[in-house]
Amino acid sequence: MPQPLRRDRDRLFPADPSTRSLARTLYERVADAPIISPHGHVPVEWLVDDRAFADPASLLITHDHYVTRLLHASGVALDELGLGGSAADPRDIWRRFAERWPLFAGTASGYWIAESLENVLDVTVPLSAATAAETYDLIAAQLATSALRPRALFERFGIEVLATTDDPLDDLAGHAALAAEGKVGRVLPTFRPDRYLDPDAVGFAPRVRQLLSATENQSTFAGYLAALEQRRRYFIDHGAVSADHGVEIPETLDLDAAAGEALFARVIAGDADAADRQAFRAHMLLQMARMSVEDGLVMTVHAGVVRNHSSTTFRRFGADTGHDIPRRTDFVGGLRPLLERFGLDRDLHLVLFAVDETVYSREIAPLAGFYPSVYIGAPWWFLDAPDAMARFRSAVTETAGFSRGSGFIDDTRAFLSIPARHDTSRRADAAFLARLVIEGRVDEETASAVIDDIVGPQPKRVFKL
Amino acid sequence: MPQPLRRDRDRLFPADPSTRSLARTLYERVADAPIISPHGHVPVEWLVDDRAFADPASLLITHDHYVTRLLHASGVALDELGLGGSAADPRDIWRRFAERWPLFAGTASGYWIAESLENVLDVTVPLSAATAAETYDLIAAQLATSALRPRALFERFGIEVLATTDDPLDDLAGHAALAAEGKVGRVLPTFRPDRYLDPDAVGFAPRVRQLLSATENQSTFAGYLAALEQRRRYFIDHGAVSADHGVEIPETLDLDAAAGEALFARVIAGDADAADRQAFRAHMLLQMARMSVEDGLVMTVHAGVVRNHSSTTFRRFGADTGHDIPRRTDFVGGLRPLLERFGLDRDLHLVLFAVDETVYSREIAPLAGFYPSVYIGAPWWFLDAPDAMARFRSAVTETAGFSRGSGFIDDTRAFLSIPARHDTSRRADAAFLARLVIEGRVDEETASAVIDDIVGPQPKRVFKL
Amino acid sequence: MPQPLRRDRDRLFPADPSTRSLARTLYERVADAPIISPHGHVPVEWLVDDRAFADPASLLITHDHYVTRLLHASGVALDELGLGGSAADPRDIWRRFAERWPLFAGTASGYWIAESLENVLDVTVPLSAATAAETYDLIAAQLATSALRPRALFERFGIEVLATTDDPLDDLAGHAALAAEGKVGRVLPTFRPDRYLDPDAVGFAPRVRQLLSATENQSTFAGYLAALEQRRRYFIDHGAVSADHGVEIPETLDLDAAAGEALFARVIAGDADAADRQAFRAHMLLQMARMSVEDGLVMTVHAGVVRNHSSTTFRRFGADTGHDIPRRTDFVGGLRPLLERFGLDRDLHLVLFAVDETVYSREIAPLAGFYPSVYIGAPWWFLDAPDAMARFRSAVTETAGFSRGSGFIDDTRAFLSIPARHDTSRRADAAFLARLVIEGRVDEETASAVIDDIVGPQPKRVFKL
Repeated sequence: MPQPLRRDRDRLFPADPSTRSLARTLYERVADAPIISPHGHVPVEWLVDDRAFADPASLLITHDHYVTRLLHASGVALDELGLGGSAADPRDIWRRFAERWPLFAGTASGYWIAESLENVLDVTVPLSAATAAETYDLIAAQLATSALRPRALFERFGIEVLATTDDPLDDLAGHAALAAEGKVGRVLPTFRPDRYLDPDAVGFAPRVRQLLSATENQSTFAGYLAALEQRRRYFIDHGAVSADHGVEIPETLDLDAAAGEALFARVIAGDADAADRQAFRAHMLLQMARMSVEDGLVMTVHAGVVRNHSSTTFRRFGADTGHDIPRRTDFVGGLRPLLERFGLDRDLHLVLFAVDETVYSREIAPLAGFYPSVYIGAPWWFLDAPDAMARFRSAVTETAGFSRGSGFIDDTRAFLSIPARHDTSRRADAAFLARLVIEGRVDEETASAVIDDIVGPQPKRVFKL
Repeated sequence: MPQPLRRDRDRLFPADPSTRSLARTLYERVADAPIISPHGHVPVEWLVDDRAFADPASLLITHDHYVTRLLHASGVALDELGLGGSAADPRDIWRRFAERWPLFAGTASGYWIAESLENVLDVTVPLSAATAAETYDLIAAQLATSALRPRALFERFGIEVLATTDDPLDDLAGHAALAAEGKVGRVLPTFRPDRYLDPDAVGFAPRVRQLLSATENQSTFAGYLAALEQRRRYFIDHGAVSADHGVEIPETLDLDAAAGEALFARVIAGDADAADRQAFRAHMLLQMARMSVEDGLVMTVHAGVVRNHSSTTFRRFGADTGHDIPRRTDFVGGLRPLLERFGLDRDLHLVLFAVDETVYSREIAPLAGFYPSVYIGAPWWFLDAPDAMARFRSAVTETAGFSRGSGFIDDTRAFLSIPARHDTSRRADAAFLARLVIEGRVDEETASAVIDDIVGPQPKRVFKL
Repeated sequence: MPQPLRRDRDRLFPADPSTRSLARTLYERVADAPIISPHGHVPVEWLVDDRAFADPASLLITHDHYVTRLLHASGVALDELGLGGSAADPRDIWRRFAERWPLFAGTASGYWIAESLENVLDVTVPLSAATAAETYDLIAAQLATSALRPRALFERFGIEVLATTDDPLDDLAGHAALAAEGKVGRVLPTFRPDRYLDPDAVGFAPRVRQLLSATENQSTFAGYLAALEQRRRYFIDHGAVSADHGVEIPETLDLDAAAGEALFARVIAGDADAADRQAFRAHMLLQMARMSVEDGLVMTVHAGVVRNHSSTTFRRFGADTGHDIPRRTDFVGGLRPLLERFGLDRDLHLVLFAVDETVYSREIAPLAGFYPSVYIGAPWWFLDAPDAMARFRSAVTETAGFSRGSGFIDDTRAFLSIPARHDTSRRADAAFLARLVIEGRVDEETASAVIDDIVGPQPKRVFKL
């Protein structure tokens, strides 16, 4: 007879009783603090429309490429999971997942799903082939209730701020409607211009033309920059506080206006070679910093991921299907031109996110420990998990303390997992701080002040909320 | 009066009593499970001939470059240790080792030798200059007994499968004889073609000629590939399940047949420059994957080691004399051509071993968490030790769980250390899993299932045993 | 009412009671052992003149770029901290620091300052805006006493050996005077020739001319090498035991005499391009090893730091102002030419310090575990902190044991922090060894012998003291 899941109230705390007890005390200070989510991928429409989630599979599996990737590795084809527009029955998808549930033991995804099942969906039946139908029905029944609608969850989760991620040409009508209605907490757009800045992105040239025509700018480099500035301004007018940049290589390049124009002309004409295209990306990252200095948008850089590593999968199933793979990253050399120009500007907030964890102690903490503009992005993507968080804190704190961090970023589209993700971060920080206290390195009063700051004031300060 | 060694039954378990207790419980499930050793360097002749080991020095020191390297670093010349054909008295070698025994405190080698001495050789006298003669005699007396013959140890150690590592032109007579005799457990050959694939290997060209003449193939690239395929088939017919590849750089390159022929012609003619030679290695690594897809041999890649770092030592004492040094490794870019061709093939089993531990969380776990063909090789060489194993599990599990691992690989020629090595891995995994349970991240039932799987079913599955 | 600081006697020990108790036992063996400081930056004049330290700010803040950098990151301008010759009131500097004291929670700097305040300066009032004036006065009053003069502290700290870092053309009069006087313990100069070896260093060419004229050598490469040899000899005659080399990239290059002359000629004439200048640095690092083999000076290499990352800050405030940032480092390839020439020479002592901690397990421990000349430098700079020390020991010990380490190096100009730094290292080592004992990996007797060796005999052996 399967045992129900029971969430351990001391989960993620260290085993040693004195450390555990103190971790619990620190955690309880912030366990119920409002959620500040300054970067993520929840579609604004979910909150605008407030429709019930369609079914357990699309809610918990299909759109979560952390989950589909591991199923795929174990031999499930992506079309069996409903990806790429394939017509898979949600019950079949759920069954495939439930019978492979042991694959997720010890993973961050497994932990979050367990948390969502028990804490949000009241499902305490363990997942398995035998319980697949039953758990599907239990969840589907829950999803049909008004308590599981997006707005109800938004409130139940205690979300104070939620940022979405949006295309520069998005009209942000959803955000405007939500704001006008005034019934949901603060939901902010985020300016995400990658596809307008990278000549190698599919559809780059037509997209740039669209940008120029939408903003009535000329097709010069100056016009292109002005168009981006206009759209940033539009986002700011709709509440945006940050611009997010995903780059494989965090390289920056300073060019004068004439060189920029010439490079842009080659890029738009399709005459740019690989070096030119990289130079363009590098120059545009620096231009984005320049614009952030001018318009005040916080600049977040998510760097070091090779997107769409498997071309076959990309062609068949599209992007964000689980084969974005980290690579070695160099921030110290790559960002130097940007930092030479703007690094000493205190109004620039440049938040660096890495998936190459070697940069934490070697590059990001030392940079953030000197430049007033540089902030240490929370562990992200593959590193957004308890052990990786512990390694992160250990790697950065002795150099940069706690004040230079971004605060936790859930970066997720998995709406149900948002409270679990923030809770994980709070528990991990409580555990880390408890150890420092027990080891005589900070006193309990200071540790209390630090954790209070991390969950609320810090992200508000860093993201200018 | 020196205290006898006493092996702590809770060794390698964490200090915290509750975690330690659970680690012990988990460990005891698998403590006596049969040993699956799908990759290692024990010479098949030892089992064929079943002769007594010659003496304590050659058994425990001379052939173990983990041991000779640290003695060398401390100032002992390699010829004093009997390397390079030097005529050192085994008693002198043993004395040099025994008096320097404190050098090995905290090392993996020291741990394994302590385990071998007490658990296999019943030597409980601590090693020192004063006890060198006594311990030598004790061990020598043991070695003279039939209980210490290779076959008796094979049985006593509970080895179910043992793979050797063999030259592609080896006739595998030893394996055939053992199989025909049927008295020893499963002993399998492994196809190890490095020296036939690397133009910079000493004797490459004559070796390729020998390969071609042995298989009656023409000296074209097509003939060379066919010759390799024939030898792989020969190995498969003699029970081989895997092909092992040691490369400094895990780079792969896809070439069409004509380009392959042209490159091969330059390489064989000695006209290939450094770039050509690297291209050849990279293309041949991809060809090996192609053959593995076709003939089903598991493909293991041991990457990232600069072989024979000290030319003087290499000239005087040969290879495998302790100066192979790891280097930074890139799997994500390097293997991409291979994975683009074969990565989605579920029948390909590609096991990646690294000595640059930064790739665990950054590259290997993300790759193995998506590609059904990619498996995470156990920590290897310098990383085959308790703390490194803990770092490894922490680095890969949150992304890829436990199911994508290779199972433990002892990779050793130090026959007496085989049970200690597997035991170390079992203890390390029990300790890791116990922590996850105590931290509320997996339940005990799941942890039990995981450790049961890791020690037997997993390596059998991954290595198609 | 603010609580006084109280230094926990078990600080930095792990929480587990049995491990903690054993760590304490091990620590107490060496807690009061004399301090061996074979590399650091205390100016010899402090000991020659034995003047009172000027004020709390210059003593604890202004000259400590670990401290000023984090204040700068938090928004304090460097001229507000008295850098770059700015006329900041020490009381204002102290106040800025005291009110930002929470920034330092969890940092190594914060820990050392807390130690210095309580253990050296008897200040137990917690730092804050409210206590800034009071604590300033308390410290200032202490500094005025004879007990806080450099010589009194030198004795109180139990310093047995202290090495300074000196320019090759320094006349070492201070060292000679101290030695003649015979009242202060052993204070040794260290030969630090970086600025004479790097064509990109500001003032390189005039400095080389000065070197040549000071040693009456001709301006050929041979003359330049002879001049360096003469100055090394002069240092040795004044007690120096080591030469220290700070390089961004630990690359070495072997050239014959003619190629060296030609390269030197281009470099001195200002005709050398970037590749030439790097070749020159690489060749000179190898020449330094050659000289160390000949004259016996220990060779320390501090590698992997991009100096003066912010040009604006460098121009305005000079070097060592907090923006030296680590970068990825390759010792295995870079040092190979040097090691091919001299690596097997047991009389060469080559100590490798890194700020890219990935090299510990991957490169430095494997190199030091084979080459008798290579020693593992203690964690340095950003890594000179409790968690980083634990990672370091974990990374190197399983491969290289304890015998290949350098012993602790404080590398500091922050005179008051010297005992705290050595104490931190002793506690960290005791904690690490205690864990190994509790985990059954070394016995307590061995652990005791190891820690006894690490704090005294080891650095004396490695630095030929």
